[in-house]
Parts: sequence; C-alpha cells; structure tokens
Amino acid sequence: MTQRILVINPNSTQAVTDGIDRALQPLRLAGGPLFECVTLREGPPGIQSQRDVDGVVGPLTRLIGERQTDCDAFVIACYSDPGLHSAREVTRKPVLGISECGVLTALTLGHRFGVIAILAASIPRHLRYLGAMGVSSRLAAELPVGLQVTELADADRTRQRLIDTGRRLVDEHGAHVIVMGCAGMAQYRQPLEDALGVPVVEPTQAAAGMAWTRVRLA
Amino acid sequence: MTQRILVINPNSTQAVTDGIDRALQPLRLAGGPLFECVTLREGPPGIQSQRDVDGVVGPLTRLIGERQTDCDAFVIACYSDPGLHSAREVTRKPVLGISECGVLTALTLGHRFGVIAILAASIPRHLRYLGAMGVSSRLAAELPVGLQVTELADADRTRQRLIDTGRRLVDEHGAHVIVMGCAGMAQYRQPLEDALGVPVVEPTQAAAGMAWTRVRLA
Amino acid sequence: MTQRILVINPNSTQAVTDGIDRALQPLRLAGGPLFECVTLREGPPGIQSQRDVDGVVGPLTRLIGERQTDCDAFVIACYSDPGLHSAREVTRKPVLGISECGVLTALTLGHRFGVIAILAASIPRHLRYLGAMGVSSRLAAELPVGLQVTELADADRTRQRLIDTGRRLVDEHGAHVIVMGCAGMAQYRQPLEDALGVPVVEPTQAAAGMAWTRVRLA
Amino acid sequence: MTQRILVINPNSTQAVTDGIDRALQPLRLAGGPLFECVTLREGPPGIQSQRDVDGVVGPLTRLIGERQTDCDAFVIACYSDPGLHSAREVTRKPVLGISECGVLTALTLGHRFGVIAILAASIPRHLRYLGAMGVSSRLAAELPVGLQVTELADADRTRQRLIDTGRRLVDEHGAHVIVMGCAGMAQYRQPLEDALGVPVVEPTQAAAGMAWTRVRLA
Amino acid sequence: MTQRILVINPNSTQAVTDGIDRALQPLRLAGGPLFECVTLREGPPGIQSQRDVDGVVGPLTRLIGERQTDCDAFVIACYSDPGLHSAREVTRKPVLGISECGVLTALTLGHRFGVIAILAASIPRHLRYLGAMGVSSRLAAELPVGLQVTELADADRTRQRLIDTGRRLVDEHGAHVIVMGCAGMAQYRQPLEDALGVPVVEPTQAAAGMAWTRVRLA
Amino acid sequence: MTQRILVINPNSTQAVTDGIDRALQPLRLAGGPLFECVTLREGPPGIQSQRDVDGVVGPLTRLIGERQTDCDAFVIACYSDPGLHSAREVTRKPVLGISECGVLTALTLGHRFGVIAILAASIPRHLRYLGAMGVSSRLAAELPVGLQVTELADADRTRQRLIDTGRRLVDEHGAHVIVMGCAGMAQYRQPLEDALGVPVVEPTQAAAGMAWTRVRLA
Repeated sequence: MTQRILVINPNSTQAVTDGIDRALQPLRLAGGPLFECVTLREGPPGIQSQRDVDGVVGPLTRLIGERQTDCDAFVIACYSDPGLHSAREVTRKPVLGISECGVLTALTLGHRFGVIAILAASIPRHLRYLGAMGVSSRLAAELPVGLQVTELADADRTRQRLIDTGRRLVDEHGAHVIVMGCAGMAQYRQPLEDALGVPVVEPTQAAAGMAWTRVRLA
Repeated sequence: MTQRILVINPNSTQAVTDGIDRALQPLRLAGGPLFECVTLREGPPGIQSQRDVDGVVGPLTRLIGERQTDCDAFVIACYSDPGLHSAREVTRKPVLGISECGVLTALTLGHRFGVIAILAASIPRHLRYLGAMGVSSRLAAELPVGLQVTELADADRTRQRLIDTGRRLVDEHGAHVIVMGCAGMAQYRQPLEDALGVPVVEPTQAAAGMAWTRVRLA
Repeated sequence: MTQRILVINPNSTQAVTDGIDRALQPLRLAGGPLFECVTLREGPPGIQSQRDVDGVVGPLTRLIGERQTDCDAFVIACYSDPGLHSAREVTRKPVLGISECGVLTALTLGHRFGVIAILAASIPRHLRYLGAMGVSSRLAAELPVGLQVTELADADRTRQRLIDTGRRLVDEHGAHVIVMGCAGMAQYRQPLEDALGVPVVEPTQAAAGMAWTRVRLA
Repeated sequence: MTQRILVINPNSTQAVTDGIDRALQPLRLAGGPLFECVTLREGPPGIQSQRDVDGVVGPLTRLIGERQTDCDAFVIACYSDPGLHSAREVTRKPVLGISECGVLTALTLGHRFGVIAILAASIPRHLRYLGAMGVSSRLAAELPVGLQVTELADADRTRQRLIDTGRRLVDEHGAHVIVMGCAGMAQYRQPLEDALGVPVVEPTQAAAGMAWTRVRLA
Repeated sequence: MTQRILVINPNSTQAVTDGIDRALQPLRLAGGPLFECVTLREGPPGIQSQRDVDGVVGPLTRLIGERQTDCDAFVIACYSDPGLHSAREVTRKPVLGISECGVLTALTLGHRFGVIAILAASIPRHLRYLGAMGVSSRLAAELPVGLQVTELADADRTRQRLIDTGRRLVDEHGAHVIVMGCAGMAQYRQPLEDALGVPVVEPTQAAAGMAWTRVRLA
Repeated sequence: MTQRILVINPNSTQAVTDGIDRALQPLRLAGGPLFECVTLREGPPGIQSQRDVDGVVGPLTRLIGERQTDCDAFVIACYSDPGLHSAREVTRKPVLGISECGVLTALTLGHRFGVIAILAASIPRHLRYLGAMGVSSRLAAELPVGLQVTELADADRTRQRLIDTGRRLVDEHGAHVIVMGCAGMAQYRQPLEDALGVPVVEPTQAAAGMAWTRVRLA
C-alpha cells in the first residue's frame, strides 16, 4: 500500500500550503511515499507570536491523532515547530519539524549558519529553540527581512529583501550557509543561493526528505 | 492600593494550590503585595506530558488576560513553565515561571545544581528548557523520584524518595544545590535540606520572591 | 524582631552608597526586612581594577563577619561581586552579589542581555565571571560608556552616554535586555529603559530583592 | 537519466560493503536514485586508528573525483567520516558522512544520544568530531563494545554486547536515543531497538536518506 | 645578564616550596633562566578556602611588585591561581598560574582531562575557574583524594590515594589525561602515570615551562 | 647526549622553513635541546585547502616515524595542525601542533583571542578545529588578511594588511590577544604587537616552547 506523509501548514493561508506543495514536487516518486499537504483550518493566517505557536498545538495534534491511521509520518511546516514534542506523544509515527530539520541539514552544508527570519519578534523564540537543540555555537546570526507579512505578496521586493538580508549574514556575520526561516517560500531558494554564492536550505524540503527516509526505513 | 500577585497552579488539583498557598506565607507582609493562589479549573489533574503543558496555555493565558487589570504580576506555578512566553505577550505586567526562577536562584546557592523530577518522562522536556535558558553547563543531573503521581499522597514515602534521589544527585553526580522539580511540595523542602546538607530550592517560593521584587520596583 | 539586610558599597564613595540607598526605597515595607546601606571605609574611591576587587575582600569579609550576628543577609554592591565566595564561607547567612543577581534577573526579561560597563578594562573581568557563571551564551555584548569615573558627575552627559551605549547593544548586538554594569546609578534606569524600549536591570535592586526573599524564607 | 549515489566503504572488507548494501534496500525505488555500494580497495581491512582515517583520504577523494561525472552524490560509509571535508572540495556534488548524518538524525529522535563505539581507542577521535560539530552538549556518553574486530564475526556475541552497551548508555548515562558508531552492522539495529526500548540510528541509512534528498532537490 | 623566573609558593609551608624547587630541576640549564622558588611568608600553611585564596593576593602582588625589577617572569604556584589577574596588572612581566597552565597543557595530551583535588571543598572553586577559562567541556570530572592536609605527610598513603582517585577518573569518568590539582607533589607524578597508563600533568612544571618560553621570547 | 626537537614545515617552501628557523633562535641554549627545522619535500608549496592538509599526513607521519629514534619531540609547523593525532599514534615522543599551542598560549594572555588567517577559505576548517578543542567560547573572531599567497612576498603590504586585520579584530570584535594563523611570519609579530597594543602570539614559537618543556621533563 502506498505510504503517505502528511505535511501540515499550521497557518490557515492556503497560498502557503500551495507553495509547500510545489516545493515537495521533486521528492515525489511513483511507488514512493505520497506527500499530502494540508492547511490547518483552525490556525491563524500567519504564525507570528508565541501565542500563535502555542495556540495551534491543540488542533494540530488533534489532526495528527486523527490521521495517524492512514499516514506514515507527519511534517509540521512552520519554522517555529509548533507542537512538535506534543505530536510525538500523540503518535508513534515519525513527526518532523521544519525548523529542526532545516537547521540540522544546514550543519551538513557549512560551518556557521545564518537564519533569515520574517519578523524580528520571532528571533528570541528561535534562539530559545536553538538553545534547546544545543546547536547555538554554530549560529552565525539570525536577521529579519523587515517586511510586514502583507508585504510578502510583492515577490520582487521580497526576493530583494531576502537577498539583502542573506548578504549581511554572509558578509558581516560570517555565515557559510543560510536557512530560510519560514515555510512556503521555496520559490526564492534558488535565486537566493545564486545571489549569495553559499548554500541555502529551504526547511520544508529538508524535513520532507527526512520524513521520506524515516518512512522508507520503518 | 494593595498590589496583587496572582499565582496560578495550572493543574486542577486544589491540594497543590493549597500547598503553594502555604509555601508563600512567609512572603506576605502587611502593606506588601498580596499573593492570591488560584487553581486553573481547565487544567488536568497533573501536568505530566508535553501535551499537558501545551494544553493549558490557552486557558492560562486567558486567565492572565482577564486578571491583568487587577493584578500586578503573575507566577506560573508548574515546573514546566507552561505558556510563560505566551503570557509575556498577553500582558506587560511581570510574568515569572517557577522553573526559570527556581533554577536561577539555585545558581546563587551552589555551583552545580541537581533537579529532582517527579516523572522520568519529564526530564527530556526539562533538559530542552535548560538548553533554551543557556544554563545546561551548571546542571549536575536530573533524576526522577520514581513514584506514580498517586503515590505522592503518601507523605512518608514521598519524603524518603525525595531524600534518596537528592542523595544520589549529591553523592554520585556532584550536585551542590538541589531544585525541587515540582510545585506544591514545599513541606518537604526543609526535611530534604536537613537530610542532604546542601541548599534545597522550592521553586514557587523563588518565583514568588522575584515577582514580589518586580512589583515593588515597577 | 526586625530583620536586617546589610548592603555594602565596597568603594569609599558615600555618594554611591546614597544612590544605592535611594534605589532600595521601593523594597522597604513596614514590618519587612530593613535595608541598611553602608560604605566600606577601607575601599578605594572606585573599584576599577582586579587589584581593587581583590583588595577589598579582606575588609569586606571582616565587616560581614562582624555584622553577621545582627544582620540576616548581605548584599555586595559592586558589579564585580568582590569577595562573594569568600563571604559565603564567613557566614551562613545569605550573601548576594549584584552582578550575579543582575544578570540572572536579566535572564527572566529577555533572551540576550547586553551589559553597559563603565570602563573598557573591566570587560575581560566581567567576561571571566560570566564564564564562571556558565551563562556566556546568553550575552549579546558588553560595551563601555567610555567616560572617566570623574566625568560621571555630569548627569546629562552620563545619561546620554548610557543611552548611546545601550542603543548600540540593542541595534548592533541584538540585546533584548540591558544590565547596568555598576552600582549607584539607579537614577538612570528609567530614562534608559524609556529611551531604549527594552527592559533595563539595575543590579543592586535585583540583588536586594533576592536577599529580601531569602531572608523572608529563612 | 537515472540518478546515482555512490556509497563508499573506505575499508577493504567486502562483507562490510555487503552489509551496507542490504541496509539501503528500503531506500531503493524504481525511478529514484540508485545506491551503488563500493569497497575502497586501497583501504585497510578496518578503520581503527586516526592513521587509518587519514590514510584513506587520498584514495577516497581520488575515487570521488573519478566518479563525479557519473554520480550525483556520495556517502562516506565509515563512522569517522574520513576525508569528508576534503571530498567536499573535490566535487560540488553532495558528499555526506555517516557519522555527521547519524548524529544529526539522532537529534530528531531523542534529547540525549548515546554512541556505541567498537573500539575504546576511537572515542577521543569521535569526541573531537562532536566538538567540531558543536553538538557535544547533546551527548549522553560514548561507550565501546569491548570486542576485538575479529570477534565481531560472532553474531550472537556481538548482538549481546551491543545490547549490554546500549543498556548502560540508557540506564547509567541517560541516553534517549542510540547511534551505532560503525557501518555495516544494520542487521543489529532492530534487535537493539527492541531490547532497549529507545530509538536506534543506523548511520549509513541516515546518511543515505539525506543523500537521496539532496539528489532529488538538486 | 641571567634571566630569573620567580616561582612563588603562596602558602607558608617551606616543604611545599622545596618540592616545587626539586620539580623544576630538569628545566634549569646553564645560560638559561634561573628558577628561584620562594615561600610567601604571609600565606597560610595551606590554601584551602576561597578566603585563603583571596587573602594572599595582597602580599603576593606586593612581592611581585617588589621583585619585578630583578625578575623576568613570575609563576604563582598554587592550584587556585590566587591573584593571577591582579598580578598581571602589577607588572608587565609575564605572570603564569599553575592551574591555568596545567589545564592547558593537559589539553595537548588527551581529550578529556580529570583533576585530582586535595579537598572536596575546593572543587566548586576550580569549576568556576574552568568555566571562566571556557574549557569546561573538556573536563571529565574532578574528584578529591579525601585526605586531610596533615595526612599528606604519609607518602605511601598519599600515593595510593592519588592512584585510586586517578583510577576512578579514568575508569568511571573517561579521563584521558590527569592534572594534579596541587603544587609540591611532583614526586608522585611518575608513579601515578605508571599506575594509570595515561599522561599525568604536574602543573608547576607546566607553568614553569611556559614561563621559560615567555622569558626567552621576550 | 643532546636532545633534539624536529620542527617540520609541512609545505615545500624553504623560505617558510627559514623563517621558522629564525623565529626559534631565542629558544636555543647551549646544553639545551636543539631545534632542527626541516621542509617536507612532499608537501605542496602552501597548505591552503583541507585536501592539502589531509594530503601531507602520509609523508609527514612517515618522516616522524623515521626520525623518532634520533629526535625527542616533534613540532608540526602549519596552522592547520595536519596529521597531529596520527603522528601521536606513530610515536610516543611528544608531538605538538602550532595551532593548538598558539591558541592555548593566547588563552594565558587575554580573554578573547582573535585569529588572523591568510585565506578566508581556511576559516571554517579552523573553526571546526577550535570546536574540537572546546575553546570556541574564547574566540572573538577570525578574519582573513585577504592577500593571495603570492602577494605575501611584499613585506610592507603584508605587514600593513596584518595590522589592518588585527585592528578590526581588536576594535570591532573585542579581541584582547591576537594569534597569527600561519607559520613562518614571525618577523611581523613585534610590529603587529606594537601597532595594536595587545599581545600577539607567533604559534611556532609557542609550540616550540611547549616542546622544549616536554623534552626537558621527559
């Protein structure tokens, strides 16, 4: 029977889910695990605060609980990895978070990693998480793009800001690899890598690949 | 007007709240901030899993939001500090967590601190938190008492197990100070300290004192 | 009987002691512990070097030894925490250092803390101390105000330099909270916080509050 | 055209390569990248010392250089990751090491990881590597099985020793997940996991999965 | 003119100074720097507490100040490195501490170092120092010999206890190299190394060698 | 019989060996160990990449093996310490690396050390090494001089670039001591120290001094 990996966008913005879905296309293979990308209807339009993070854990873990019989693994596709450890209590199936997997993948691509955050206010939360992971000594810096969430709709401006921010991480903070600190922006990965000349990790792809591996080895 | 510090027991067990209330008696002074201890009715009987932790954030932050007009500070009285960073977004009034404050207080009392956990399953969660706090290098070890939550009702047995566990932390792991990794057990603090011969921190008291200070200095 | 906390300014400048005394006013409550602020006559006018730090340990611990019968706790009010560990050998009463308590309090107020030092030459000494405390990974940076000790008499200039230095810690080094790396300058705490928009810790107040808590719980 | 991942066993023992080859079977999918497992003929029978590690870098990187036109990624299948950073200079194709990938995968499966080494003499080398990776704070402990390489041929004894060593890592050192510190022993992964009740990572599988992902996303 | 290195035993026990003097014999060469070993008369018979450490800083730095015109470098020969940073303010001549140099030398001899302390009460002080040095992650453990200072006069018993303690550091804590956490016991270095089979660092010799180098290169 | 320390320049450039030889002149004393400086003929003209590092391990350890009967210690005089741990397996005689010894010596001279690298591409390799050594928390920053290897022949330009780079390490990154991240440039040490006003470590001298000490104490 076909294996299935459920990739959950915990915010309610379908466009983000669509971006995630497109990003996983290269990982789909006939005969291999399916990637089903879903939007958490109960989520906020965007996950910006710790309250947003904590607020989605309930519906997110409920969804995982409901789908654990027909799914073989789960990916939580928000860079704050909301509910990751709760979800791992709900099911014995693998649950991967894109922040954890994005950072760990970066460690295989360069010595010091930089992170591009959308919002400055998310940075302390991410720093706490890196501390909990025990990998803070590999962090070059995390910087925000400095755009409002609504401004992200302007693709040219967003791409330019990502490049500007990545450039500062590389030039001023000595980053050897960049992690995109958000989901659903995979379209900018290649342009960013081309502009910066260092590897750029799209974290949903990184997590999906690790989920794929776990499913195949189970 | 009298200042008020709301101490919230996020589990629904009134006996725990009562224990917390008694523990704060020495910090009450005529003319000083009141400590009001309340039980979060929506909480589970005990907070044992990450799901329990994440599950109380919603009602806990709601309660803090409702009480922020008549309270001057908040203490979250569960050793996992559930919702601490969410609560700090809800109100600009000080919010202290007993785990954070208990550990920081221990750092002023001895070089390496040991933690007595109730459940072995909580230890990885606590270790993640210590990593996020950036103080892991000061940890001697964390060990569980190895009792079921229901067995805690037997005071003699509980006291003995706390002492046995504390003894291992001191003798085998080199702890110079002990943190009690739970709320509502302040009655065992002094016997434990007497038996072990090293300082023992009751974290609710530590957090209440830091809240008192913040309120007076505001 | 009234409890008493002795706050010792280890330098011989009475104006600093007076500033400390005023800073503790909010922590004084009828029926609560007294704060008695004293000047260590044998101290130098200001503690600037490691020699100054080491040089006051003798008279400081002597004073603590003499006063331990009529005092319930001691605060060493110099940001280098001179003689802290010696003093803890002299008496079993609580002894708190303002550097230790100021930094630990900052950890409850923001993820990365910045420190404003008076003198550049003190920074290596402070960094050694943060290393000994095991909290270096939470440090954003420590920067000096770049004023001679005599220039601190000019309040307007001092306030402006504190703000400029704090601004660099926040903007260039990513500090989320600021610790004032000196005693006796509590008057600048609120203006600094207003100007920077992040919490600012006055370390003598932080230590006094922790001493108050220890005394009440003893 | 079919993508190809070259998995190189840098020791000259074909039985190890055969074990690796079997271990990767679940990752093979029609239409997906091939895994070709090869033995480095110039390698020693087993890689035991730092000299063995350094000694295979030349032939290993030569092989990678020669095969980079017909291969899309490389896996170095020895737990010391010999030549990993040299190989990354030889080719722009992804090169993964099983130690790096095994450890990073373990970080997604439990808080503190234990490592089972074959030889005690390899432990300092592995500790240096974990330090270079910046993940030492997540290590519970590394312990050797205490068997001569020749004794590994006795499968029953080997399995029992792996279980005994893993048991000590879990019970005495608090490991929440185990990494097998060797290649070619995938047959013991499941029995070890069953016996210990915690996740066990077979590092060649972990690295192969990460290589698969990199190839698909390239 | 002959260069001169002043090695100061900060305790007042001449027998310790004599032991230090004998230990430096191999570093003496015609035409090379002299090692003059002196006893700090004002010191206590043994440096056991933090008060002892802080208490000798005054006379120690005075002595260094007086001798800086006729000496080219100084070694502070007590494992707590009393007054090291004060002394570096007193003179621009090199000042080395045996604890700092002993530990740094150990880092060149094995991955994890163990320390044998005389007294258990000194261990927290040493741990603070290792934290200040930033090398705690290389520490296997520090254990006390568990003898009273007076019992050290019994050479057979002392040697045996050193060996027993070192054995536990190697076998139970994974130390690859041992640092003797005291001055004046160089006579036990070789027997200890022979018994344990790992390198053993006598810290006064290590510091004297680094002082010799600094003097020759000045 | 005269003791002999073999200092090996692992690149094939005799001018570098000559510079090393001159740098060791102050450590030569009649009756003391000889320093014999040799060029590894099989080495590349300069060691710039990880491949260069790994590539010299074979001939380097062969040379050490051949010379271990007539030499008492070995110094590997390249800032990447190529083959250091392999060499320590080849001989029981002391083997010191200039990077390890240069950094450890810097730790005795200032709190945070800066490193001047020749090539930007070497920095990740050096950072891995500092991580393996466990001393990363003491690093202020490492910056490249930004010269091609061929440009190093221009002494005036090289000296100016070293000073400019050191200046940035001190002023922008807070370095209290500088390590020259290369061998054979001892002529610039004093001018650099004079220009910067902080200690500057020439790593070959540091390693040679530690080797001298080991030989005398053996």
